[in-house]
Amino acid sequence: MKKNDYQVCFGLAVRKQRNNRNLTQEELASLCDLDRTYIGSIERGERNVSLVNIHKIASALDIEVKELFE
Amino acid sequence: MKKNDYQVCFGLAVRKQRNNRNLTQEELASLCDLDRTYIGSIERGERNVSLVNIHKIASALDIEVKELFE
Repeated sequence: MKKNDYQVCFGLAVRKQRNNRNLTQEELASLCDLDRTYIGSIERGERNVSLVNIHKIASALDIEVKELFE
Repeated sequence: MKKNDYQVCFGLAVRKQRNNRNLTQEELASLCDLDRTYIGSIERGERNVSLVNIHKIASALDIEVKELFE
């Protein structure tokens, strides 16, 4: 995979899990203490997200980190 | 968990998987095209590693990313 494919895959996983929990991007952003536009760019595969934010997102979605890589 | 705990957990997982494959830090670094000192600092929990490098490391270890979060 190319660099960017990882980001796209991760973004799709975040979107899927967010939709599973019926959260808007804004609600997820608020739970993560991150900006809504940042969540949007993650979901579009535009961000090379780091460990700490990956954990913040998983925690806000009430899932384990590994579920974002399945 | 505190921010840094995630980094420490991730670092221990990398070290464990690297030892499982009988690789030195130098060998892993070379397989990842990253610096040996960077691998060392990841294993010590000092780095907020991002998606692209997480994938590089998993790929060099011949494992799936989720195995670094188990």
